[in-house]
Amino acid sequence: MTRGRFITLEGGEGVGNSTQLQALSNLLQSHGYEVVATREPGGSPGAEAIRKLLMEGSVDRWTDETEALLFAAARSDHVARTIRPALDHGYWVLCDRFIDSSVAYQGVAGGLGVDKIMQLHNIGSGGILPDRTILLSVPLYDAAWRELNRDNGVLDRFGKKDGQYHQALNSAFLQLAAADPVRYRVVDGTGSVEEVTGRVLQSIADLL
Amino acid sequence: MTRGRFITLEGGEGVGNSTQLQALSNLLQSHGYEVVATREPGGSPGAEAIRKLLMEGSVDRWTDETEALLFAAARSDHVARTIRPALDHGYWVLCDRFIDSSVAYQGVAGGLGVDKIMQLHNIGSGGILPDRTILLSVPLYDAAWRELNRDNGVLDRFGKKDGQYHQALNSAFLQLAAADPVRYRVVDGTGSVEEVTGRVLQSIADLL
Repeated sequence: MTRGRFITLEGGEGVGNSTQLQALSNLLQSHGYEVVATREPGGSPGAEAIRKLLMEGSVDRWTDETEALLFAAARSDHVARTIRPALDHGYWVLCDRFIDSSVAYQGVAGGLGVDKIMQLHNIGSGGILPDRTILLSVPLYDAAWRELNRDNGVLDRFGKKDGQYHQALNSAFLQLAAADPVRYRVVDGTGSVEEVTGRVLQSIADLL
Repeated sequence: MTRGRFITLEGGEGVGNSTQLQALSNLLQSHGYEVVATREPGGSPGAEAIRKLLMEGSVDRWTDETEALLFAAARSDHVARTIRPALDHGYWVLCDRFIDSSVAYQGVAGGLGVDKIMQLHNIGSGGILPDRTILLSVPLYDAAWRELNRDNGVLDRFGKKDGQYHQALNSAFLQLAAADPVRYRVVDGTGSVEEVTGRVLQSIADLL
């Protein structure tokens, strides 16, 4: 049995990665692939309990350092209990956000530095990286509009951060993508859900 | 205003550090010192929320890696929100367990290695170390007996680990103490509470 493929979707708030993850999962399953669709923070019972601590409460509930450690802890549980077992069974794992979100959010936009985030990832999750990371790219004002229109305008701790933070995030993701063109594909996230899903599928065509 | 002193009490399960911490706190306060008595995991609202995840559930709820990250996250919050502000105000901080517990429990007894634990401490808490660490030493069978007799015999996730784990823990603490005789004092924990408190006070006499 071959090892499954590990695909992640990344991007700032409101770029549509959750929607695209579900669409890609359905598409792959309809073509006979065994798919585990998951998301971060969360994706295993332990990580979901940690997720609550991360997503609820005031914007400054945690320092950048504590936040990075909690994300790494949730990821460590998620990798050990969900992702590695699924890949070992030959399943495809599609994950909404992964290590690149920690690098962009806490490492770059949060100012902690990329090295510390990768050290935490090495200790917690053996440094596992996806086979392909899809960065959905949407103009910032468009993303903000989408974000405000979902969940009845109720924002989580990250949606509440200011415009400067979201700009830093956006440019951090684009830099990460440029630095690793083998793993990364930047996909235009504008247009209908179906149009974007078509582009997403194209971006993993070489892995199918 | 001078910076306060940072004192930690360490040891395996059931050696009596919580009791001695309270006794030392009372004694120092009666001599006019401003004291913050705290404990780990916990000691700040965020860290107490993380503590719940660590202390409840089955023995194998978390992998060693996830457990180490959660302890480091709780410590990071505790240091940022309670310990550093108190020291900066010139208070004495007495803490029941700190980084040495992570080194002994997850690093040595848990097999993760000392280096990884210290990397997490450097990232999360700027590597802060106590001015004095008191290791309470009690024969293992004695400690087990005390542990079983408190909380009506209800053990937390760590009390439930097996005898080999507790032996590894005990020898890990003794090695840590031997490696840093300036910071560490090994205190005989047998005898009455008052006798032990007398020895504990002697072990910090040079700092008063």
